Amino acid sequence: MKILILNGPNLNLVGSRQTDIYGSENFDTFLQKIKKRYPEIDFDYHQSNIEGELIDHLHATRGKYDGVVLNAGAYTHTSVAIADAVAAIDVPVVEVHISNVYRREDFRQISFIAPVARGTISGFGLQSYLLAIESFSME
Amino acid sequence: MKILILNGPNLNLVGSRQTDIYGSENFDTFLQKIKKRYPEIDFDYHQSNIEGELIDHLHATRGKYDGVVLNAGAYTHTSVAIADAVAAIDVPVVEVHISNVYRREDFRQISFIAPVARGTISGFGLQSYLLAIESFSME
Amino acid sequence: MKILILNGPNLNLVGSRQTDIYGSENFDTFLQKIKKRYPEIDFDYHQSNIEGELIDHLHATRGKYDGVVLNAGAYTHTSVAIADAVAAIDVPVVEVHISNVYRREDFRQISFIAPVARGTISGFGLQSYLLAIESFSME
Amino acid sequence: MKILILNGPNLNLVGSRQTDIYGSENFDTFLQKIKKRYPEIDFDYHQSNIEGELIDHLHATRGKYDGVVLNAGAYTHTSVAIADAVAAIDVPVVEVHISNVYRREDFRQISFIAPVARGTISGFGLQSYLLAIESFSME
Amino acid sequence: MKILILNGPNLNLVGSRQTDIYGSENFDTFLQKIKKRYPEIDFDYHQSNIEGELIDHLHATRGKYDGVVLNAGAYTHTSVAIADAVAAIDVPVVEVHISNVYRREDFRQISFIAPVARGTISGFGLQSYLLAIESFSME
Amino acid sequence: MKILILNGPNLNLVGSRQTDIYGSENFDTFLQKIKKRYPEIDFDYHQSNIEGELIDHLHATRGKYDGVVLNAGAYTHTSVAIADAVAAIDVPVVEVHISNVYRREDFRQISFIAPVARGTISGFGLQSYLLAIESFSME
Amino acid sequence: MKILILNGPNLNLVGSRQTDIYGSENFDTFLQKIKKRYPEIDFDYHQSNIEGELIDHLHATRGKYDGVVLNAGAYTHTSVAIADAVAAIDVPVVEVHISNVYRREDFRQISFIAPVARGTISGFGLQSYLLAIESFSME
Amino acid sequence: MKILILNGPNLNLVGSRQTDIYGSENFDTFLQKIKKRYPEIDFDYHQSNIEGELIDHLHATRGKYDGVVLNAGAYTHTSVAIADAVAAIDVPVVEVHISNVYRREDFRQISFIAPVARGTISGFGLQSYLLAIESFSME
Amino acid sequence: MKILILNGPNLNLVGSRQTDIYGSENFDTFLQKIKKRYPEIDFDYHQSNIEGELIDHLHATRGKYDGVVLNAGAYTHTSVAIADAVAAIDVPVVEVHISNVYRREDFRQISFIAPVARGTISGFGLQSYLLAIESFSME
Amino acid sequence: MKILILNGPNLNLVGSRQTDIYGSENFDTFLQKIKKRYPEIDFDYHQSNIEGELIDHLHATRGKYDGVVLNAGAYTHTSVAIADAVAAIDVPVVEVHISNVYRREDFRQISFIAPVARGTISGFGLQSYLLAIESFSME
Amino acid sequence: MKILILNGPNLNLVGSRQTDIYGSENFDTFLQKIKKRYPEIDFDYHQSNIEGELIDHLHATRGKYDGVVLNAGAYTHTSVAIADAVAAIDVPVVEVHISNVYRREDFRQISFIAPVARGTISGFGLQSYLLAIESFSME
Amino acid sequence: MKILILNGPNLNLVGSRQTDIYGSENFDTFLQKIKKRYPEIDFDYHQSNIEGELIDHLHATRGKYDGVVLNAGAYTHTSVAIADAVAAIDVPVVEVHISNVYRREDFRQISFIAPVARGTISGFGLQSYLLAIESFSME
Repeated sequence: MKILILNGPNLNLVGSRQTDIYGSENFDTFLQKIKKRYPEIDFDYHQSNIEGELIDHLHATRGKYDGVVLNAGAYTHTSVAIADAVAAIDVPVVEVHISNVYRREDFRQISFIAPVARGTISGFGLQSYLLAIESFSME
Repeated sequence: MKILILNGPNLNLVGSRQTDIYGSENFDTFLQKIKKRYPEIDFDYHQSNIEGELIDHLHATRGKYDGVVLNAGAYTHTSVAIADAVAAIDVPVVEVHISNVYRREDFRQISFIAPVARGTISGFGLQSYLLAIESFSME
Repeated sequence: MKILILNGPNLNLVGSRQTDIYGSENFDTFLQKIKKRYPEIDFDYHQSNIEGELIDHLHATRGKYDGVVLNAGAYTHTSVAIADAVAAIDVPVVEVHISNVYRREDFRQISFIAPVARGTISGFGLQSYLLAIESFSME
Repeated sequence: MKILILNGPNLNLVGSRQTDIYGSENFDTFLQKIKKRYPEIDFDYHQSNIEGELIDHLHATRGKYDGVVLNAGAYTHTSVAIADAVAAIDVPVVEVHISNVYRREDFRQISFIAPVARGTISGFGLQSYLLAIESFSME
Repeated sequence: MKILILNGPNLNLVGSRQTDIYGSENFDTFLQKIKKRYPEIDFDYHQSNIEGELIDHLHATRGKYDGVVLNAGAYTHTSVAIADAVAAIDVPVVEVHISNVYRREDFRQISFIAPVARGTISGFGLQSYLLAIESFSME
Repeated sequence: MKILILNGPNLNLVGSRQTDIYGSENFDTFLQKIKKRYPEIDFDYHQSNIEGELIDHLHATRGKYDGVVLNAGAYTHTSVAIADAVAAIDVPVVEVHISNVYRREDFRQISFIAPVARGTISGFGLQSYLLAIESFSME
Repeated sequence: MKILILNGPNLNLVGSRQTDIYGSENFDTFLQKIKKRYPEIDFDYHQSNIEGELIDHLHATRGKYDGVVLNAGAYTHTSVAIADAVAAIDVPVVEVHISNVYRREDFRQISFIAPVARGTISGFGLQSYLLAIESFSME
Repeated sequence: MKILILNGPNLNLVGSRQTDIYGSENFDTFLQKIKKRYPEIDFDYHQSNIEGELIDHLHATRGKYDGVVLNAGAYTHTSVAIADAVAAIDVPVVEVHISNVYRREDFRQISFIAPVARGTISGFGLQSYLLAIESFSME
Repeated sequence: MKILILNGPNLNLVGSRQTDIYGSENFDTFLQKIKKRYPEIDFDYHQSNIEGELIDHLHATRGKYDGVVLNAGAYTHTSVAIADAVAAIDVPVVEVHISNVYRREDFRQISFIAPVARGTISGFGLQSYLLAIESFSME
Repeated sequence: MKILILNGPNLNLVGSRQTDIYGSENFDTFLQKIKKRYPEIDFDYHQSNIEGELIDHLHATRGKYDGVVLNAGAYTHTSVAIADAVAAIDVPVVEVHISNVYRREDFRQISFIAPVARGTISGFGLQSYLLAIESFSME
Repeated sequence: MKILILNGPNLNLVGSRQTDIYGSENFDTFLQKIKKRYPEIDFDYHQSNIEGELIDHLHATRGKYDGVVLNAGAYTHTSVAIADAVAAIDVPVVEVHISNVYRREDFRQISFIAPVARGTISGFGLQSYLLAIESFSME
Repeated sequence: MKILILNGPNLNLVGSRQTDIYGSENFDTFLQKIKKRYPEIDFDYHQSNIEGELIDHLHATRGKYDGVVLNAGAYTHTSVAIADAVAAIDVPVVEVHISNVYRREDFRQISFIAPVARGTISGFGLQSYLLAIESFSME
């Protein structure tokens, strides 16, 4: 099984930025834990602050991946283009959020991605990624 | 570990109603699978179509449960009272939905429960319950 | 032919409450008239002020009734849960209102039930119930 | 008893247009059925695609008709002028719709006519007209 | 000086309809009074319930009239087409209303005509027409 | 004088829940204080988490009580049905809130009950109940 | 006959400010013309930039004036207090505007005064005042 | 104990204006009753139609009064400046309204003062003032 | 190939009205150019200021025309009835606008016709008609 | 004549993605057809998923191209920046859409580009591009 | 160079009120610093809690001042009248705010003054005034 | 002191684009003036049309700069991602705009950046940058 973990804008700062919201664990360290926990899964990981590069990464999964764990960060709330990319590919995408976005600003209550994703997991800190992977790996 | 699974209105019909949205598996059958999968967890299960009874069940978890998996069904979108009950108790509540609510009617885009829940899991069919339980059981 | 007449909150007071809006005829007296007028139809009647009990009554019609005449009263305007119950059962439901709701407060202009009902009849006083029954009995 | 049946824009195409919404019965054929069913009632029938002609027909009922069955079609949702005509005359008007308008586009959720009509009947196909006539003829 | 008085839908019923709002004086009687009061002005008068005919009358004033007194009735609140006609002609148009529209329903608070009219006079009963004529005749 | 104090959802937890908002005094203890302070008044007290039961309690006051002190809790903001019950009975109802609801979430800014209540008292902690009782007992 | 002409904020600058909107005639000069034109009427004139002083002037007309010509300027669009003063006095008030306010910013489309005034005259330049006076003096 | 009673615009007319809404008792007479009822409290009273003077009066209470009973009248619904003054001073302010504002126009449903006041009392006629004073004097 | 060019309200004035928006070419002259440019196409042309007549013209194309070029003018933004006529006929309709409507008033941003038309062409002056014809004639 | 065809996000997938909406023809194949059809025009073509790169391409046309055919895809509905680029350059831009965007989601009803484009062509499939080129090449 | 510094409601309390928002420096002390820093500029300073007095001060600058530094406080968000005064005078006005208003309540996000001011400076504490003065004094 | 001046989309065209809004001075020329005026400050300058590159530049200032002068251009109004980057770094950011954005389109009235910036300076042409630098350099 091959899974892409794709992180959007500002998520390169997880662990060192607003730790009250996003926690203090570095994403690279966390990625190692994921790989150890799911040795049977082949993981790829990309992060980009550029909306169009996230679209490129989504396009590249066509016919090559079994699933995408997507945290589009702030683009979740503004990007019709990323949502269109999710809808355009034939790979199931699970939307994740570290924080409980429903507790935050009004403009974070809208997700263009959610309606075209397979499902959404929000509010469990970095554990949200694990639960998304579980959704692919559970028999 | 003791967990309450609490289902709201119309969820007693899961498996026999609108199977294109909610699937064809009966919840009781599914509950047996859950118990088999997590033998170390003590599960309680309640379903009610009455908003106030769901509140009573939530109140009753205070000091007695480690977590609640709550699918408040249609009350998710209209009940400030259930949300207040979730906020009032000291037990973590995970909100789950069988269907991807973000793909459905506008009035289902609002959840009064999400901001006071620990997290939300939506769109994975009955698997949403399993992922919620995972969120409690993952070390 | 078997028909359930189902009345929601405050409709137990019809005949003695706000008679300028709801008229002065008691619903029980009126029910006798209905039965006399349609002797070939088997009528059941329930009234409840509790949203969840109305849902229970709707569920109980599955496979047992040919139609439901539903006046959900104030829950018409707020209850996604009752609307979901109407959509979940395979029995046709006709929505009725005693008063012309379109002449009243803004919040009474929304009906969650109307889109999932077979049809809506509003504004004819208690005659609205007769017209709903006609809709089932007309050849 | 003298009743005017008044049909608005595009209803001249009933039976040959969008038959999934409006059915396949021609209105003229249906009108013959109505007349046969209610031989004691004197029916007049007009259809016009012109808003102002519908107003003229409504004005002409003053002091001459016992009731109007009005399907204003699309003008229901946009015409303050027709609603004013309904309010201006002393003849009771019943609003009917063939389709369940509450299941359709947002702009069809508004009726300027409903608040000034005696009552509204919607969603029963051509039967909606029969129920409206019943509302006048029921003792 | 040549002035057109142009009345829209339902204004043919002034004097006999909703006299609490529109008064009990017949417009024809009133028109005679106007002509007597302003013998130096050449008046034309048209009333139509048809939006497009009102547009035709407005077009016909081009180069032939010194002013139009326009009471577009209910079309005031819904007709972009009449407003476009007012904007298209080079004759000054004064908008009048018999009733104080600002005291009535929300949908009567919008006038598409007001922004393209020379001015608006509202709420003075039939006197509104006299004031509009004054606005043309005052030196 | 006979007064019903009626508390809605989650108010059974007053004194032990979110004490920063609702204070730390238990309602039963407080009720004893009320009775001692107003020995001349006959008090009844009910609390329910079920919307329909609150309606039942309101109906039961007809012709038997001189006033109701109603804290409908979260149902204040969502229940047309309770508001209809308040409007339907002939007993004056005073709406009370422990917290200053105007300082809280947007959805708490709406009260369906306020327009049909005699008056509203909000923000004085449990003292709000005392002021409501004063409103009945002041000569 | 005694009439108060009451001008609100910034109208002391008429004639010297934004002459494309308000014209170049000074209000004092214009007032002399008014007095000459209507020698039989006793005019008083006040202008104030202070909302509360306008209210004081309105209160002072009670029982002493036959009418008020009120141009509340920018307060038209924001002042519930002045509108309440107009409603509180028994003297008829005619609202006037120099410019066609319906052609200007969105926030100028709302008048709190219009619903409580006898009528509104807008867009005729300083002539608006003359028409308002006409409305009082016409037999 | 020293309390300021502060009344806003148009409240100088209480007793002689719109007596169906505000009652027929003069505020000065009522003030004498208040003083007699609470001889132990030192009352000051101001009324002004000028928003800024109400602010001045609020500022002047700093360090000198134990409480303010504020009926800001129409400014309640429009004045951020008065609300800022209430928030700026360290004296508790109770907002009162004579009428039940929740039954009136939409624009009266907003209070800028309520969120910064200690509490709100609305709908009890002049008794609202007594209840506000009670809130300060109750032990 | 047979094509109907159908023009709505005020388009009879094209060439002589608001030439900065609509250009100075007369539509009849332009129609001759069209016919010369596409000699192989059989053109019909109608213009009406009456909404219902435009509907009649649309109905008349059923089974007789290969396409309609429709400029509904101001009715574009207000007429559900014309849109219903477009949806009701089996002839493809292309919506055209002379001006770039997206640069104009807010109320011109809504087109009821666009969702039921085959496509929309807007902003190219009279060339918009040519492009619409091209869309039918291009192989 | 030199024309730039500029395609935005996800349009690299045309022909292989959601073929029910976008058709099954590959854009490169289509581009060859365009070039063959208009041999006298010099075409450049760029596609990018990155908003800023589309802006760069637009800037680069200044003084070098006679027109731009722009399908900004999803950025049409969200990008003020691309619209500003269109407004900033002196080259006429025609906005095209393959699908009839007016039939799709609400968020696709807004185009930031339309008001600053020369014109808009929407709903003709890939033919939309041809019509845009026609708009430049028609004499 | 002559500059007026004009402060609106509650700004007389700066330094002693809500010091977390407005800082603890007294405005008079700060004014001395300003004068020392810009000895070449002739400063006038006024503060008023009365909207109309602020308008009077703005009018008085006509032809006498080179610039106004205006902090209209809460009136910024509600006063069309002050904005009209700013637009009416020929002296450039710079709008300043001590706090970052964009971080505060929704109703503070609207400024009627900003569109008619030369520019806006917000969020720098009392330094905002210095930057405004710089904008006038920078060569 | 080290300051980054960061310019967003289309600002590379300042001086040659829409000079009535943005002025005719080239930004590079202006940058030289800035450096000459503040020789004691170490300036860096970046411009990008790509949202994600602006985020990268903001991230790169962490721990290395004393302040950022950010003109995010059109992204100001649409980019949650850039606002999140501003909030994520520990370097104070001052938002600047060349034009008075409050005088322009509605969609430019929203700034996602303003609430997380230290302050905002808008409307002073290129001088806005100087004032922002002043805000850092003023003692």
